[in-house]
Amino acid sequence: MFLSKGLTINDRGHLTIGGCDTVELAAAYGTPLYVMDEDSIREALREYVRSMNEHYPQGGRIAYASKACSFLEMYRIVNEEGCGADVASAGELYTALQAGFPADKLYFHGNNKPAGELCMALEAGVGRIVVDNLPELHRLSAVAKELGRTAEILLRVTPGIDAHTHSFIRTGQIDSKFGLTMENGDALEAVKEALVLEGIVIKGVHCHIGSQIFDADPFIHAAEVLLQFLAEIRRETGAALTEMNLGGGFGIAYTGGDKPRPYSEYMAMVSGALKKKAEELDFPLPFIVLEPGRSIAAPAGITLYTVGGVKEIPGVRTYVSVDGGMADNPRYALYQAEYTVVAAGRMNEPAVRNAAIAGRCCESGDMIQENVPLPAVDSGDLLAVLATGAYNYSMSSNYNRLPRPAVVMAKDGKSRVVVRGETYDDLIRNDI
Amino acid sequence: MFLSKGLTINDRGHLTIGGCDTVELAAAYGTPLYVMDEDSIREALREYVRSMNEHYPQGGRIAYASKACSFLEMYRIVNEEGCGADVASAGELYTALQAGFPADKLYFHGNNKPAGELCMALEAGVGRIVVDNLPELHRLSAVAKELGRTAEILLRVTPGIDAHTHSFIRTGQIDSKFGLTMENGDALEAVKEALVLEGIVIKGVHCHIGSQIFDADPFIHAAEVLLQFLAEIRRETGAALTEMNLGGGFGIAYTGGDKPRPYSEYMAMVSGALKKKAEELDFPLPFIVLEPGRSIAAPAGITLYTVGGVKEIPGVRTYVSVDGGMADNPRYALYQAEYTVVAAGRMNEPAVRNAAIAGRCCESGDMIQENVPLPAVDSGDLLAVLATGAYNYSMSSNYNRLPRPAVVMAKDGKSRVVVRGETYDDLIRNDI
Repeated sequence: MFLSKGLTINDRGHLTIGGCDTVELAAAYGTPLYVMDEDSIREALREYVRSMNEHYPQGGRIAYASKACSFLEMYRIVNEEGCGADVASAGELYTALQAGFPADKLYFHGNNKPAGELCMALEAGVGRIVVDNLPELHRLSAVAKELGRTAEILLRVTPGIDAHTHSFIRTGQIDSKFGLTMENGDALEAVKEALVLEGIVIKGVHCHIGSQIFDADPFIHAAEVLLQFLAEIRRETGAALTEMNLGGGFGIAYTGGDKPRPYSEYMAMVSGALKKKAEELDFPLPFIVLEPGRSIAAPAGITLYTVGGVKEIPGVRTYVSVDGGMADNPRYALYQAEYTVVAAGRMNEPAVRNAAIAGRCCESGDMIQENVPLPAVDSGDLLAVLATGAYNYSMSSNYNRLPRPAVVMAKDGKSRVVVRGETYDDLIRNDI
Repeated sequence: MFLSKGLTINDRGHLTIGGCDTVELAAAYGTPLYVMDEDSIREALREYVRSMNEHYPQGGRIAYASKACSFLEMYRIVNEEGCGADVASAGELYTALQAGFPADKLYFHGNNKPAGELCMALEAGVGRIVVDNLPELHRLSAVAKELGRTAEILLRVTPGIDAHTHSFIRTGQIDSKFGLTMENGDALEAVKEALVLEGIVIKGVHCHIGSQIFDADPFIHAAEVLLQFLAEIRRETGAALTEMNLGGGFGIAYTGGDKPRPYSEYMAMVSGALKKKAEELDFPLPFIVLEPGRSIAAPAGITLYTVGGVKEIPGVRTYVSVDGGMADNPRYALYQAEYTVVAAGRMNEPAVRNAAIAGRCCESGDMIQENVPLPAVDSGDLLAVLATGAYNYSMSSNYNRLPRPAVVMAKDGKSRVVVRGETYDDLIRNDI
């Protein structure tokens, strides 16, 4: 039933996370509340690093895709685990730097980075700027020249791989806002330009084929295609680029029906395929970078809500209203995302009905989940939505002027606030 | 072509709003930028008030549904126009009060108002609390008793009307998280309870049948059903309730294909139907409240973006990337909402292609609009998305840690910041 090793049931029948009783957390910090299990985050990072070391000793790096969940303490934890990070904007870059994250282990992403942000990245000494398109390449060259700096870049390419996932989060196919198309030669042309442009040093290529992918084949295929492209670049230009960034996209379990493959299996397969292909092409094995985000943050997090009321419409359905909703978790409204929801204070009680979990926003679409088997909960009961560590806090809004909840980190039975909950004053701080 | 009277084209071929050249606004304030035309907001409010006075002199109030767009200056403008406001949370209530909005003209809504927020509303002297369900009614009674205050309430009921709109924003049908069901007698039972509960004075009923509705029939039908319900309450309990809040939901034009009916026509029809029904039922005409939100704020606002790059994929499509996206306007990602997008600096140039307008977030679903006819725009050009005054700023997030844009109010050729754009420091203000 459980989606994370950090979750257990204690002898009071309460859900615990990181050794903390969720009913006590709710009482101490209030609800809604984001809670993350620090050990789960660290263990997920370590598992990636271990797999990389075991199956690809030729060299590589795990870079946490921080758009999944970005705040100071996340970057500190990632840094302590020796990993790099992927930042998708100057805001993420700024947060990473303020957390003391080493700039040279940062990868700066995005399909549209304004000149000012490129400038900020160069001045900070960001390790790699992942250039998405030609106008950006030219913009970066101009900024680098002006600053008297050199930009070490990867070029983002679209390998034309359909990863069979939700169309919103499928990015490797040819019809994408991201990257340079390989199929029509755009990618190769851009490499040729990058090789001669002032202020630019091209180190390799990047692709990202999508999100929440459970199948290993698309990853293997992408790695092969990129290596083939590196060989083509060498053939066409004489330049042997040494880096290959394979992005992220590893699927995680939101419900018992999701069966993610252990990372080590992916890594073993991708590594095996790369070695075979490298031999075949007589190309040196590149330095590889993987950018997991969801699989690091999502399973580590839960959201706690208090039930405000239960509305039974006989013959139709039962709504259980909670004190948060699409403002703190827009993923159901956006993607009809599946989640596991449990009654955190009644974990040993049998389910007596299926309920729709409704948010508190003045909008019918503000739902957390439908068809959730629940025990006899009522006003005041605590619900926990599992696997909300990614794309919940990071996508949260102040819709209906709801202050964003605090984020609490739990570890070894102790908890600490890592992001303070917003106050009403925060809501009007920028109003004039 | 234009969706708002506040928009024109000047002799430089630039889009103007409130008499301000959008190219100059972008240069002065940067992009992305929300701009609102103050006169459009005021004129929309006045048109509602005029229609009410003309067609329903028996008495009523226009209450701006502030979830559409909530910041201090909006409440000031609404107050200056003599209207009330609908607040959907303590955060909106707090903002309204900080703006000096008279509490007695506020309507406090929501399907799940925590006890603390009910307490805050009572202490502030909010005019009407619109009670959604029985647990909330009991909670409110308890809070009122404790504070030694009386809560003047409306009861929200679901009249079972299907307003033929998008299911996410259709709220009057029986399968809804909102309100007390009339069909099965729940609503009448709740009225009976409210009539005797300590600390509670019930003044009337409320319903909201959905959003973005173009047809007048559902509104007429809802008004008749509510009046019938008031008559039924009198018959069953002897109490003649005097207020009827009909919510909002009036459709607006997002594209040239949307043909909204003038408000005065709605009002004439609803008023006519009410008068006929009142005679038939021998029931006094109630005080009516209308709660328009989108129709006040949406047409008044535009969002300005700078193009970062144009990506043509031959035989597939052309992507035009802008420097904002789903973080400042999640409505396309949420509802595949339609918008009109124009090249604000090239208004007199003919369209040369259809483009997909892509946001800058690291997510394929981050689109603003597809199939937009555009002139030959390139990096640095300005785009304006029209009718973004509602549910854009109010639903905005910091996804990808993008700071939220400023809101600028334009009037008579002058502009002023009413909400400052967020800084990078704002992003980490609550991080520990």
